[in-house]
Amino acid sequence: MTRKIFIRFFIASLTLITLQSRVFANIFTGDDPQKVKYVFLFVGDGMGQAQVNLAQAYLAAIEDHVGFEQLSFTRFPHVGFASTYAYNQLITCSAAAGTALATGHKTSNGRISMDPEGSLPYESIATKAKKDGYKVGIVTNVSIDHATPAVFYAHQPGRDMYFEIGLDLARSDFDFFAGGGFLIPDGGSIESGAVNVIDYAIRNGFNVVNTREGFENLSTAAGKTLVISPRTASEASMPFSIDMAPTDITLADYTAKAISLLDNEKGFFLMVEGGKIDWACHGNDAATAIHEVIAFDKAVEHAVSFYLKHPEETLIVVTADHETSGLALGNNTTRYNSYLALLKYQKSSAVELNNAISRSGVNKSGDPEADFAKMMKIVETDIGLNSTPHNTLLSEEETASLKKVFMEGVYGTGDEENEYRNYEAFINAAVRMLAEKAGISWGSSAHTFVNVPVYSLGQGAEKFSGNIDNTDIPKIIGELMQIK
Amino acid sequence: MTRKIFIRFFIASLTLITLQSRVFANIFTGDDPQKVKYVFLFVGDGMGQAQVNLAQAYLAAIEDHVGFEQLSFTRFPHVGFASTYAYNQLITCSAAAGTALATGHKTSNGRISMDPEGSLPYESIATKAKKDGYKVGIVTNVSIDHATPAVFYAHQPGRDMYFEIGLDLARSDFDFFAGGGFLIPDGGSIESGAVNVIDYAIRNGFNVVNTREGFENLSTAAGKTLVISPRTASEASMPFSIDMAPTDITLADYTAKAISLLDNEKGFFLMVEGGKIDWACHGNDAATAIHEVIAFDKAVEHAVSFYLKHPEETLIVVTADHETSGLALGNNTTRYNSYLALLKYQKSSAVELNNAISRSGVNKSGDPEADFAKMMKIVETDIGLNSTPHNTLLSEEETASLKKVFMEGVYGTGDEENEYRNYEAFINAAVRMLAEKAGISWGSSAHTFVNVPVYSLGQGAEKFSGNIDNTDIPKIIGELMQIK
Repeated sequence: MTRKIFIRFFIASLTLITLQSRVFANIFTGDDPQKVKYVFLFVGDGMGQAQVNLAQAYLAAIEDHVGFEQLSFTRFPHVGFASTYAYNQLITCSAAAGTALATGHKTSNGRISMDPEGSLPYESIATKAKKDGYKVGIVTNVSIDHATPAVFYAHQPGRDMYFEIGLDLARSDFDFFAGGGFLIPDGGSIESGAVNVIDYAIRNGFNVVNTREGFENLSTAAGKTLVISPRTASEASMPFSIDMAPTDITLADYTAKAISLLDNEKGFFLMVEGGKIDWACHGNDAATAIHEVIAFDKAVEHAVSFYLKHPEETLIVVTADHETSGLALGNNTTRYNSYLALLKYQKSSAVELNNAISRSGVNKSGDPEADFAKMMKIVETDIGLNSTPHNTLLSEEETASLKKVFMEGVYGTGDEENEYRNYEAFINAAVRMLAEKAGISWGSSAHTFVNVPVYSLGQGAEKFSGNIDNTDIPKIIGELMQIK
Repeated sequence: MTRKIFIRFFIASLTLITLQSRVFANIFTGDDPQKVKYVFLFVGDGMGQAQVNLAQAYLAAIEDHVGFEQLSFTRFPHVGFASTYAYNQLITCSAAAGTALATGHKTSNGRISMDPEGSLPYESIATKAKKDGYKVGIVTNVSIDHATPAVFYAHQPGRDMYFEIGLDLARSDFDFFAGGGFLIPDGGSIESGAVNVIDYAIRNGFNVVNTREGFENLSTAAGKTLVISPRTASEASMPFSIDMAPTDITLADYTAKAISLLDNEKGFFLMVEGGKIDWACHGNDAATAIHEVIAFDKAVEHAVSFYLKHPEETLIVVTADHETSGLALGNNTTRYNSYLALLKYQKSSAVELNNAISRSGVNKSGDPEADFAKMMKIVETDIGLNSTPHNTLLSEEETASLKKVFMEGVYGTGDEENEYRNYEAFINAAVRMLAEKAGISWGSSAHTFVNVPVYSLGQGAEKFSGNIDNTDIPKIIGELMQIK
């Protein structure tokens, strides 16, 4: 052996010893290096690549630079694309996509962890994890009986069977639930004489809290816990992030609490849904969608902090169930220009603006011209349109198009089904107009079938990279958790 | 040492020996295991995730199943997302994005491998590879002086300086160029008395071929080679794939030829652009865009075949410069349904349909109603709209909207700037209507700033995974090729 070859051999041996150390350590201790103890699955409902990039570009734009700011999960080392199509339809609903993410099975739109015919249940990764000794938490900012949380604990042929889904929750042995409220808490008779789903959950051993104080004082001593948001907005969901008061509990608060309660020697599985990204996108409400993505990211940050303490045993997967509303990061009005910073002038969600308008009642003077003028003032102060300082003055044509929306339809026709329908249509049109001026557009107000991004960090994270299907996600998680 | 521990140690040693063998082999031979010898960079111009998924879902739909067919590159093991924003603008043009992909520098829209001010040149990975002894090939199906190919060999402050870009090509020492033609082959005086760019290239040692026979007989003996397409369509590009005759040379043919000519002991760098995905998307022409993605994929297949012969030394990166036209895989008409198989009834691109109409001249009878009826027949036979067997009968409203497009504008006004302008607008509207019936939509006819997918295979491919910027791509390629 010449000296040169010997030195090469020596250096190679050193390298290999370093590589070997961990394998050997595990061989001698009998531990399996692959087993993941702490698993986070974050589901940004409706969060396609475009929604993520819009939030990134917005954060840069309000700091007056061109490009993207990173979110916690866009820094993750591994990414993949997941196809989302349902069993018999390219465009999935949240129930079918959720069933895929929770159980690894494609199903028909509308099913909650049941087969395409709605007759056989599919077991979720959360249920399997629980059986295997992991603690399990399910967190959302929409109602706790909504499709995405439901697929992890319930089995129902229809996503609208909220009462039955609520019963499934109350019967579950999961350790932590947190969300808005219940859409149909009492819809039929409940065994054991419970008056509603929440009462039934209490009778089944759940510690139920619905105050900020109760939430803050939660400890592991309480046993299995169900947190209902002290303040809810439409459809038993928590308020949009853009509409939140400083005292409101956030998705990030829920996530931090879930981590502190679930943390135990045997590990946990925690699913966190950012459910209102989807809702904002269905409403084509760009500013609101951006704030939802940012709020979702703040929840992910807590998981990242946990990961940093347990990097060898933690896995974080951030993905979406589908993209909502065909968000395009450009349009034919602004062409190659973008003015995303304009979106910061929108003060609340379109939904909340509409609620405020119908609550106040002051806008119904009986004089359509005067009411329209009042509404244009709201558009200026609360949406930032038609404002000289913001450089968003509307053309005569644009004002006319908003006026047309306001004046047409139910206004003055005596149709009382929803006397503020034209106000809603008007606000929605104004919000879409702001998006157009900002340089983006919406192809739909329904879901689309474009692949969604998958971001992963931690033990086994590389297995979620590449082109995968949404059904692969729980399968890989199950393998990594070594669930039978 | 107990028997059990000994067995574990023995198994671990065997595993490690396997792992070591390659490292040792390289240590003893002195080869660097990291150096990549054969590099393919495929750029699907305008090919966002949505364009890829549309092609995948279309291929499944015409086989009558719901879901995606795989393309060669959607099977690649590694994927990433690349941000595409330009130096001072979120929405990039192909010149700035190309400069990023070729040189690793952000620049202003319009620059061809020059700094944002257009004063300093940036060296491309292709030029560096050539200096380092690699052979270099540049292939496109648009004109060879177009932005994406140009950024690899030229330096000009404006992408429209086609004549100057052509001169840069003629002066280059790259080994292989193939594309459509030149947009401005003679635009000024050329040194050495050459009559045009092509003549100049010949004087500079290029073997120029522009026939199918010449192309097929090309061999390495010819030295540096420039292939001009025997048949070109608009703007010196090769015909759209959907419009090709069996005798036409395809992007895949070019790629196969490039591989055979560039293959040599010192390795090569080959860039292949699918340039007309972008063009089809600018025209919101979905069927044509799908066929372009498929044609691009067939070019990639040749690289995959080469990789299979040299898996240890080959790298293939497939990406895009930007997304074009905000393609949304859903719309408000079809909502949660998709009817992609309808797109198979479109027989040629909108551009070619328009060319055929203006060439034939027969449609200008002077009777607008009669001409409109003739056009509706073309819509039925060549686009598949308003057809009973295809279940695409138009409503009265839809027919009226097409008629409005046809009748309005220049028809009968005597404006002779483009006497077929209304025919073009009409065909474009019909093609968009087909897309709407198929269940997709377009947010724009310009580019958007959504991240583009990056698919990679082979040696070092994992380095392109995760969230990257388009400027990272040539930097990583340069590192892997160990270019100084």
